[in-house]
Amino acid sequence: MKIETQRMEQQIQFVLEIDQLKQICRQSYLIDGNRRENTAEHSWHVALMSIILAEYAAAPPDRFRVVKMLMIHDLIEIDAGDTYCYDEMANQTKAEREQTAADRIFSILPPDQAIEFRELWEEFETGTTSEARFARALDRLMPLLHNFHTGWRSWQEHGITRPQVIRRCEKIQEGSERLWQLALSVIDTAVRRGYLAAG
Amino acid sequence: MKIETQRMEQQIQFVLEIDQLKQICRQSYLIDGNRRENTAEHSWHVALMSIILAEYAAAPPDRFRVVKMLMIHDLIEIDAGDTYCYDEMANQTKAEREQTAADRIFSILPPDQAIEFRELWEEFETGTTSEARFARALDRLMPLLHNFHTGWRSWQEHGITRPQVIRRCEKIQEGSERLWQLALSVIDTAVRRGYLAAG
Repeated sequence: MKIETQRMEQQIQFVLEIDQLKQICRQSYLIDGNRRENTAEHSWHVALMSIILAEYAAAPPDRFRVVKMLMIHDLIEIDAGDTYCYDEMANQTKAEREQTAADRIFSILPPDQAIEFRELWEEFETGTTSEARFARALDRLMPLLHNFHTGWRSWQEHGITRPQVIRRCEKIQEGSERLWQLALSVIDTAVRRGYLAAG
Repeated sequence: MKIETQRMEQQIQFVLEIDQLKQICRQSYLIDGNRRENTAEHSWHVALMSIILAEYAAAPPDRFRVVKMLMIHDLIEIDAGDTYCYDEMANQTKAEREQTAADRIFSILPPDQAIEFRELWEEFETGTTSEARFARALDRLMPLLHNFHTGWRSWQEHGITRPQVIRRCEKIQEGSERLWQLALSVIDTAVRRGYLAAG
C-alpha cells in the first residue's frame, strides 16, 4: 500500500493502532447480559449518549468537544488496560500507567494532532472545563444504567457497597444536577431491592 | 428507577435500545484477525477516523456533523441486520428493511431528536451534502484497510473481484480524491499479490 505523505502514513497508522481498543474488556455487561462490553463500543455508546443528553449539562457545552473527548478518553487502555474503578490497589498505579500509555499512543499521530488529542485527554482526566465535567458525568452514569438493567451483576460480583458507588459517582453532580438525581434514583433502587449493601 | 420527565425517559430508553448495536456482526475482521467486528465498535472507529482525516475531504466539512452521521449511520442494523455490501440478493431488500427499522428506532427519541437523527441518517444514505459524501467515503475506506491488514480475509471468503470492489468504492472519490488514491493503492496491491481476481 502506497501512502502519499509521512503525515498521512502516521494518521493511518494511528487508525490501525486504535483497533486494539475493541479487545479491552470492561466490567460492565451488555444490557442483555450475554457478555461484558469492550472499551471501543463503550466509547461509541457514551459519546452518542452525550449528544442525546446534552440539554442536561450544568453549563451549555461545546457538544463536539464533549463527543471528541469521550471518543478518545479511554484510548490509553490499549496499553494500560481497563482499571476497575472499585479496585483500590490497581488505582494506585493507574495514573502512572496511563501517562506512559498516553505518551506512546498519541505520539503515533502527526505532532499537531498528537497535541490536540493529548490535551483533550488531559482535560477530561482533570475535569477542568464544563465540557470535561459533563463528559465525566456521563462516563460515570453509563455503568449505573448497565448495572440497573443487568440485575446489578457487576456490582454483585465485586461486593460493591452504596458508599463506594456514591464516592465514585458524586462527581456526576458537577456535570449535571438532573443526571445526578437520576443516578441517585438508580443507586437507591439498588439498595431498596437488596442488591447494594447500604453501608 | 424514577425518571423525572417523559422526555428524559424516552432519551434513556433510546440509550438502552442502541446497546444492541454491539451484537450486530459485520464481515470485517479485527486487525489482529481474532474475530469479526461488531457495528458499534465500527461506528466508533470510523467516526474517530473522520476527525483524524478531515483535512482530506473534498470540501471542508462541518466535522461535528460528519461525526454524528457516522455514529448513527448503522443504527438501523439493530432491526435490519448488517447487509454485506457484496451480497446482491440481500441488497435488493435492504432499502425497505432499513426504512422500516429507521421508523421504529428513531421514534423512540423525543420528536425533535427523532427528526434530527432521521434526517442525518437520510442525508448519509443519499449522500446529498459534502459531509455525507465524506462520511460515506470513510465508511467505504475502512473495510479496505481492514482487509489489507487481515490478509484480505473477508474478500477471500466471499470470492470478491476487483470490479466489485471498484464499483463499491468508487464513491470514495466524491468525498476525497486523496483517500480515493489510497483506496486504489490498496486494491491494486491486493490484485498484484493475487488476493483479488483482476476481473
